[in-house]
Amino acid sequence: MTDTTIPLYRDPTAPVDTRVRDLLARMTLREKVGQLNQRMYGWDAYRRTPSGSFELTEALYAETARFAGLGALYGLFRADAWSGVDHSNGPGAQDSPALAELVQRHVIDSSRLGIPALFVEEVPHGHMALDGTVLPVNLAVGATWDPDLYERAAAHAAGELRARGAHLALVSALDIARDPRWGRTEECFGEDPHLAARLTEALVNGMQGDTSAGFAPDKAPVVLKHFAGQGATVGGRNSAESELGLRELHDIHLPAARAGVRAGAAAVMSAYNEVDGLPCSGNRALLHQLLREDWGFEGLVMADGLAVDRLARITGDTVSAGALALDAGVDLSLWDEGFTHLEEAVERGLLNEATVDAAVTRVLRLKFRLGLFERPYSTGELPPVAQGRELSTALARGAVTLLHNNGGVLPIPPIVSRIAVMGPQSATYAHQLGDYTAPQRSGVSVLDGLRRLAPPGTDIRHAPGCALTGDDLSGVPEAVTAAAASDVAVLVLGGSSARSPDTEFDANGAARNAVSEMTCGEGVDLAGLSLGRAQHALLDAVTATGTPTAVVLIQGRPHVVPERAGALLTAWYPGPWGGEAIAGVLLGRAEPTGRLPVSVPRSVAQLPVYYNHKDIEYDGYVDADAEPLYSFGHGLSYTSFEYGPPRRAGNVIEVDVTNTGKRQGRSVVQVYVRRLLTPVWPRTLELHAFQGVELAPGERRRVEIPFGTDQLEQAGAVEIRVARSARDALAAEPLVVRLRA
Amino acid sequence: MTDTTIPLYRDPTAPVDTRVRDLLARMTLREKVGQLNQRMYGWDAYRRTPSGSFELTEALYAETARFAGLGALYGLFRADAWSGVDHSNGPGAQDSPALAELVQRHVIDSSRLGIPALFVEEVPHGHMALDGTVLPVNLAVGATWDPDLYERAAAHAAGELRARGAHLALVSALDIARDPRWGRTEECFGEDPHLAARLTEALVNGMQGDTSAGFAPDKAPVVLKHFAGQGATVGGRNSAESELGLRELHDIHLPAARAGVRAGAAAVMSAYNEVDGLPCSGNRALLHQLLREDWGFEGLVMADGLAVDRLARITGDTVSAGALALDAGVDLSLWDEGFTHLEEAVERGLLNEATVDAAVTRVLRLKFRLGLFERPYSTGELPPVAQGRELSTALARGAVTLLHNNGGVLPIPPIVSRIAVMGPQSATYAHQLGDYTAPQRSGVSVLDGLRRLAPPGTDIRHAPGCALTGDDLSGVPEAVTAAAASDVAVLVLGGSSARSPDTEFDANGAARNAVSEMTCGEGVDLAGLSLGRAQHALLDAVTATGTPTAVVLIQGRPHVVPERAGALLTAWYPGPWGGEAIAGVLLGRAEPTGRLPVSVPRSVAQLPVYYNHKDIEYDGYVDADAEPLYSFGHGLSYTSFEYGPPRRAGNVIEVDVTNTGKRQGRSVVQVYVRRLLTPVWPRTLELHAFQGVELAPGERRRVEIPFGTDQLEQAGAVEIRVARSARDALAAEPLVVRLRA
Repeated sequence: MTDTTIPLYRDPTAPVDTRVRDLLARMTLREKVGQLNQRMYGWDAYRRTPSGSFELTEALYAETARFAGLGALYGLFRADAWSGVDHSNGPGAQDSPALAELVQRHVIDSSRLGIPALFVEEVPHGHMALDGTVLPVNLAVGATWDPDLYERAAAHAAGELRARGAHLALVSALDIARDPRWGRTEECFGEDPHLAARLTEALVNGMQGDTSAGFAPDKAPVVLKHFAGQGATVGGRNSAESELGLRELHDIHLPAARAGVRAGAAAVMSAYNEVDGLPCSGNRALLHQLLREDWGFEGLVMADGLAVDRLARITGDTVSAGALALDAGVDLSLWDEGFTHLEEAVERGLLNEATVDAAVTRVLRLKFRLGLFERPYSTGELPPVAQGRELSTALARGAVTLLHNNGGVLPIPPIVSRIAVMGPQSATYAHQLGDYTAPQRSGVSVLDGLRRLAPPGTDIRHAPGCALTGDDLSGVPEAVTAAAASDVAVLVLGGSSARSPDTEFDANGAARNAVSEMTCGEGVDLAGLSLGRAQHALLDAVTATGTPTAVVLIQGRPHVVPERAGALLTAWYPGPWGGEAIAGVLLGRAEPTGRLPVSVPRSVAQLPVYYNHKDIEYDGYVDADAEPLYSFGHGLSYTSFEYGPPRRAGNVIEVDVTNTGKRQGRSVVQVYVRRLLTPVWPRTLELHAFQGVELAPGERRRVEIPFGTDQLEQAGAVEIRVARSARDALAAEPLVVRLRA
Repeated sequence: MTDTTIPLYRDPTAPVDTRVRDLLARMTLREKVGQLNQRMYGWDAYRRTPSGSFELTEALYAETARFAGLGALYGLFRADAWSGVDHSNGPGAQDSPALAELVQRHVIDSSRLGIPALFVEEVPHGHMALDGTVLPVNLAVGATWDPDLYERAAAHAAGELRARGAHLALVSALDIARDPRWGRTEECFGEDPHLAARLTEALVNGMQGDTSAGFAPDKAPVVLKHFAGQGATVGGRNSAESELGLRELHDIHLPAARAGVRAGAAAVMSAYNEVDGLPCSGNRALLHQLLREDWGFEGLVMADGLAVDRLARITGDTVSAGALALDAGVDLSLWDEGFTHLEEAVERGLLNEATVDAAVTRVLRLKFRLGLFERPYSTGELPPVAQGRELSTALARGAVTLLHNNGGVLPIPPIVSRIAVMGPQSATYAHQLGDYTAPQRSGVSVLDGLRRLAPPGTDIRHAPGCALTGDDLSGVPEAVTAAAASDVAVLVLGGSSARSPDTEFDANGAARNAVSEMTCGEGVDLAGLSLGRAQHALLDAVTATGTPTAVVLIQGRPHVVPERAGALLTAWYPGPWGGEAIAGVLLGRAEPTGRLPVSVPRSVAQLPVYYNHKDIEYDGYVDADAEPLYSFGHGLSYTSFEYGPPRRAGNVIEVDVTNTGKRQGRSVVQVYVRRLLTPVWPRTLELHAFQGVELAPGERRRVEIPFGTDQLEQAGAVEIRVARSARDALAAEPLVVRLRA
């Protein structure tokens, strides 16, 4: 006699944990193992037919047959040089829901119990898919010091993702930029744990929304990348060792993760690097003791791509590597062989089935919380395209940072009639985008932006001068001519994380041989921190004309650029519409409100240069300064501000800020602490809080900043220093606060 | 009625611990505190009288009065630019015993219980005193890979020290060179923990001898510097923070200390830097739990100069700083204010008197083991001066390392009739000496050495060409003329740790403003790793003449030097007679037997470059190689060697080594392991053992190297690779050894 009642796990009114338990009890070990695997590249699951629709591939059939279903599918919408997907063969925004449904329907049909798959997508700075709204990279987001704006942008990205039929967003958030040689510096919110924590919180809140009743149809659970310490690898070398001690790990590299977990992040990704001798994906102390036991994290741990198989180097084979990773706390693997053998690992006694069950429970819980059993297909509407562009451009504008401005080169006054726009970054948006980005249909270069925004009749000349890399100086004379014949020169230089079809890739998608113009991005570490030789020659030649010059840097890390020009801006990778944001600031249509989220070194020889080093007197090298060229937190305005002395009023620090200049402007009030009595050796300064304040000319406002003592529990007394940058804070009048008797 | 029996502590037949207990029981708290202080600079204790003898100063009287005696006196014989002592006002070898006796007699007279003082001297590379035999710096000792020779040199230094009336030797040993920017790289035995451990053992054995019945009159207890991790400070910055995790600390930075403690070292010096958030001198986990409890160390812990007072930064004042340090495990302070207030600390309840007693016990035990109560004054004879010079020169010769030799520039054949000797290091021995060195009466430059050793009639021209630092190129043409007119050019370049009278010093003697030509040494960190601009210009100009050129580098760290010349040698700082050793190798009178104890980087941009990094695949930076220019262990010979395949025979690795060339030579057989099955992430290679072998042309010998598995207890299987350098080891045929089932 067949039981015709609906199984409990299918009952949407039952509590999630009840549903999970019921479903789990019905599953075979093989089906369970299937839930923990995420082996396929999503772009191998479909092909476009001659008629323009999509069909499924044998590869997908084979994979779903192997595991009697599918746990998760990575990158169904990924489109880039590595995947080989572009507008000719991949899904755009409009045809994505149908493709997702096609795949999901097949997965459900392949599963005896009808379990849908998680569709997992790259969202390091917007959804990395055709027609996905590209946001500025995290380093630019860090430069905005504006968590509210970023939260709105993150919410937009989640809406896009879910409307297309995908679920889980892989988001860059946790890596801290401590060595600018690292090609993934662009994915960091900066060098500071507090800034990164605030922005990670905003990211989680924006993408996930209120999850008390599960995830809304326009909200996406996030996988916070990477847990933990990936920014500390020696030499800025991608996924290399770190020498990190536990205290340094906790002080600098964990606060963003802690904030993300507190905000309810659904998942974290365990990193490639090791912490104290154990790669994160095999590190039980990190994934189990710290994350689950100490922090009470109940979400999912996904391993970085092939990170589980790498463990075979120490265990001897991929079966034992899989067992080690699962036992350490990894729930869901990415592309590995190791997790496909978990059945064998249980049979060989390397693993308890209970450990498998715990991991499967976490995967299923997420699927239930997403409502996938009730709504396996997209039900949402794509958010308005214009809204995405607006948010992306607003972030780009907020990130533009004025580093120096001698002789008032900027803003370019309306009276200027001739502007020369030069440099390899000046007339293309291709290098404004950051790594992982899908092919774009359109964008705005700095040249485009200036042409749109300059007063009518302005004579705007253009000469590229040189390429981003290489030694070809043949274009320099043309640029010199243009500069010499103009009132102002705008020289747009920088680096690039644009992968070309010639780039070679590792199995995990990191660039192996950076070809063409790629000098940044995953796997592309730059020892010398130098722009190409041709760019330096162009800079010298243009500034030698004597024409007032503003250099704009479009880059994914701080480069070392000689201070030749009158003005220097960095926009980081501002995204497709960054040229408009930059042009607005150059012309004074917008204020330069960005503040440095990283210290800018004078040279690679003085690394490291982060501001929050330990409080050691160090006079510098015999041949060089130890201090950076530009300090963390630094950024000039077109107006000027005055800060009154800080006062403490209960749990608030108050400071009066006055716009003493002639223009509207935004100051980022930065509250630093300097620990006095403390059981451990303190840092010279620690960013404790910050708040942006927008002021009209002459306006004064009392800024009130919450002063939490959570971070300070071990300190007996601290100095509070309110300032415009870390360097300014060293000179600021301190307010001494006793925290205990 | 007075007790007329001899107090127990005065009875030389009583066991040391009994004597200590007895004496301690008689002491007041103030007297005890006196034993833990070492506040005075020794050179302030005396002055030379017009008649040429010495008299004591008010400063000494005040100090002994303050503590009713004196625990220890630092640097009675120190003579250098910082102390201002030279041959005009300081004690030479002959008048030292009398000076020591004068001071000691006063100390004993000032002490109610007649307790003599410890005289503590700097012996980083020989006794740093007038007439002390200067040895090559540790980095050169590391290059010899010859612990036996070093042990004999250390024994000589101990004999000198004791004959002059001093007792305790501060010896550089424990710092590991991980960042060549660090000015104290010269004080390290190199980048490798095993090499450093073997040489530390040799140092302890040589200086201390058999201590089962206390210290012989010609043997000196050592204070091993520095404990721990000082080589790991970020950016190569002197005494800055380290991010060191515990595993990295144990793998790399502790093995030399462990070996030294096992060999019976009398004392260690706690370092300035912090380990995991706590400065070593306030780090109870390090000084107490690890050193005393885990390792069973029963010796003395001395803090580095003013390291205790630095703790006031976190405790609020020097009284509590002293209490923290003593409680953490520091027994004897150096120059600090903090330890003078220990009485007050006890009274304020910051400290138990029992903790004071434990520290005093350790100080007194050392005094008894030295026999100071029986023989407070020098009784020994100075070892022969010629023996010191011989040992120093032998070490220098063993350290000369041939890095490349294209077209057989070296050895210079006897037929060569014209040799040009150039460069700022060519005609002076002043910069061959290393930091801390006392003024020298004589020495041998490379020019001197060549003049002595070249065949009679050889035309040896000299032109300095330029200074070590600065941009003055006016001497270059003269050097070019000399080179062009010669058959061979010898260009002697490098750095200098020679302090001039203009150098400014920190309170602890570290150089603050490096002036004149100082580019290395304590407090003199070099960001760019570059020789002076003039030296680079000279190198270019001389090699451009086409005359075959051998470049000799005299240096305290690896510099980045372009590979322009046919041959390149490094001699590190070879000591006063280094020029003779170098000339011998240049002329083929001696073989170049040195091997690199550190990797030589291609540029500062690729740091770090140590060979024993974790086993991570890393293809390099997009603009640079990640591999060093010259590998750890590398060094060419004038002959050639062939290694057979390694075999394991019980606890021995056997390998047949053949001299396949036409000259006598020494090969350093290096045994590396590569861990296979292991619970922690392994390094690519680890030096496990080494042995020098001297072979005649055509000779073959079976070299047997003990294969201990102590270091390998956690590994399940390892590869053994026997090779001539770390880089060669990567290509060597591995022998797989299973260590457990």
